[in-house]
Amino acid sequence: MKEIIKNKGSVYCNTGVWNAFNKELKKLKPTKIFVITDTNTKKFCTSLFLNHYTFTISPEILEIPEGETQKNIATCLTLWNELSEKGADRQSLIINLGGGVVTDLGGFVASTFKRGIDFINIPTSLLAMVDASVGGKNGVDLGLIKNQIGIINNPRLVIIDTKFLNTLPDNQKTSGYAEMLKHGLIHSDDYWNKVKNLNETNIDGLEELLWESVQIKNNIVTQDPFEKGLRKTLNYGHTLGHAIESHSLSKDSINPLLHGEAVAIGMILTSYISNIILGFPEDKLNDVSRSILDKFKRVNFNSSDIDEIIKLLIYDKKNTNGKVLFVLLNDIGNHKINCEVPNDIILEAFDYYKNYK
Amino acid sequence: MKEIIKNKGSVYCNTGVWNAFNKELKKLKPTKIFVITDTNTKKFCTSLFLNHYTFTISPEILEIPEGETQKNIATCLTLWNELSEKGADRQSLIINLGGGVVTDLGGFVASTFKRGIDFINIPTSLLAMVDASVGGKNGVDLGLIKNQIGIINNPRLVIIDTKFLNTLPDNQKTSGYAEMLKHGLIHSDDYWNKVKNLNETNIDGLEELLWESVQIKNNIVTQDPFEKGLRKTLNYGHTLGHAIESHSLSKDSINPLLHGEAVAIGMILTSYISNIILGFPEDKLNDVSRSILDKFKRVNFNSSDIDEIIKLLIYDKKNTNGKVLFVLLNDIGNHKINCEVPNDIILEAFDYYKNYK
Repeated sequence: MKEIIKNKGSVYCNTGVWNAFNKELKKLKPTKIFVITDTNTKKFCTSLFLNHYTFTISPEILEIPEGETQKNIATCLTLWNELSEKGADRQSLIINLGGGVVTDLGGFVASTFKRGIDFINIPTSLLAMVDASVGGKNGVDLGLIKNQIGIINNPRLVIIDTKFLNTLPDNQKTSGYAEMLKHGLIHSDDYWNKVKNLNETNIDGLEELLWESVQIKNNIVTQDPFEKGLRKTLNYGHTLGHAIESHSLSKDSINPLLHGEAVAIGMILTSYISNIILGFPEDKLNDVSRSILDKFKRVNFNSSDIDEIIKLLIYDKKNTNGKVLFVLLNDIGNHKINCEVPNDIILEAFDYYKNYK
Repeated sequence: MKEIIKNKGSVYCNTGVWNAFNKELKKLKPTKIFVITDTNTKKFCTSLFLNHYTFTISPEILEIPEGETQKNIATCLTLWNELSEKGADRQSLIINLGGGVVTDLGGFVASTFKRGIDFINIPTSLLAMVDASVGGKNGVDLGLIKNQIGIINNPRLVIIDTKFLNTLPDNQKTSGYAEMLKHGLIHSDDYWNKVKNLNETNIDGLEELLWESVQIKNNIVTQDPFEKGLRKTLNYGHTLGHAIESHSLSKDSINPLLHGEAVAIGMILTSYISNIILGFPEDKLNDVSRSILDKFKRVNFNSSDIDEIIKLLIYDKKNTNGKVLFVLLNDIGNHKINCEVPNDIILEAFDYYKNYK
């Protein structure tokens, strides 16, 4: 059993995870157990979960509709009301079983119900395993603004069982893979080279690298839990990625993008910007663009899309005083935070992305 | 200047408070400052506040409608959206200027906006000064259930200026006075005797005792910030008080009660229950009932009111596993937490309250 000890809970990966899970339930002795899950996860993941669940109290399933558009305060209100009606108390436990929407939203619901009750996260998507599983960020979107409402609070425990990945369609695996590529870019040439050559739809080859990703993220967030400096590196590609994702959700003319698909585009754009502003090496920029475009379909943005995306940038949580601040790279594994980027270089980056061959 | 150092911020009382306030703003250097206040407070308290405000950035006023019924997630949503639209960022500061509704709700809005920004509380009611000013509890009601959604998070600073009390109608002062009486009952005969003889509408006599109340509460919450044990004593009279308050807000047949008015009734009922279950002395029970009924008008409850109130009890945040748990008193200053109380004794207590002469 692999284990990282964090502030509060622990992260467990694979072998022995379900023993650890049932042991923790015995220790916590919750009065009631509620499982927050979405329509899709309920269909594909609940039976695997229940097969491993041995605790004496039967869990009650609270189901929300699937999708990023459900990650809002209205869904929280429904859940808070259900918890109240079903008699959840301060010693009740919430288990979030699902992708990033479920773990982010369910973590917020638990952290604010009666001023905070315990919760356990069981991520079922690759994205949630490598990204949402550590760091304690939780929350919901406010209209088009991603994760605008939330707090930082760690779950008691995170259970990572890669068997859940068998339930995912390929584009969902690819979406999570984008975060692993990001960990490569901010961490080291070594990890970048391993990850870029991975066949992410083959779960057997994935497991070791997934675990390395969780450790890279965990090292960063334990050094800087409140994102004063180092943790900002985890936003590599996300400043533009979030705006692209929000825009794609708001508009019918382009397809809604998955989080990782938007971040993948954001990483190409940001690597170009890094090249222009900090001299990020040309050959590595090519490597990033080629590796990403091999796996992620290119998206067409017209000039009004790009204008809208730039407008959305100013709502990014990480901005201060109206300035849009980027994490850029001097080189793979060598970052610079709080970089201002002029609009014309962002426009150039979109040109580069459009025309890259 | 009187000062208590807490986890995060400090509480300042009277002399020199505004110097401390302006000094803190200079230190924090916020990018923008937003003042959350309600219609009533804006009318009566903003000019006093602005007279003392010397910082270079003009504060923007965000006004919410007054009253406990506004303390809900819908009001939070309005404020989160206003903050987003007006460009609030992570280095912005929120100042909550008002009574308990404003400080509780504004603290929650600040603690969850972009995963938490700094806030300063300036309580303007006696209740908010002696109760909401310390302890870091914040949040909103969920339907009829008081404070069901929230977290614990301390403000940077609490500014207590008793001059604001001149703006309060007498019933509002009396409402805050109930919490001071409670501090007496849970703390000592000495403080109880001083507080019960106070003329709470005379502000000059009030100041010293108010400060003592703040200290009593602060001593308790610093020993037990997450309400594992000792802090539960602060709920004396509140288990029934909250249910009575919720009921009075839901129904036209009795007048809506202020928080302190409901808690005052709750303290008589709970002192009776303490007498029956723990032998709380008869003469002190009489003293409690007489002192409270001297200042607080008796409310009539019919048997359907009482049934509804007992139903609401089970939603109390402090309950575990469907059991309604009370804080009771062996004597003044000598408590017992987690006491189960049979329904028939609660019914008897309402009888006692109705017939006390």
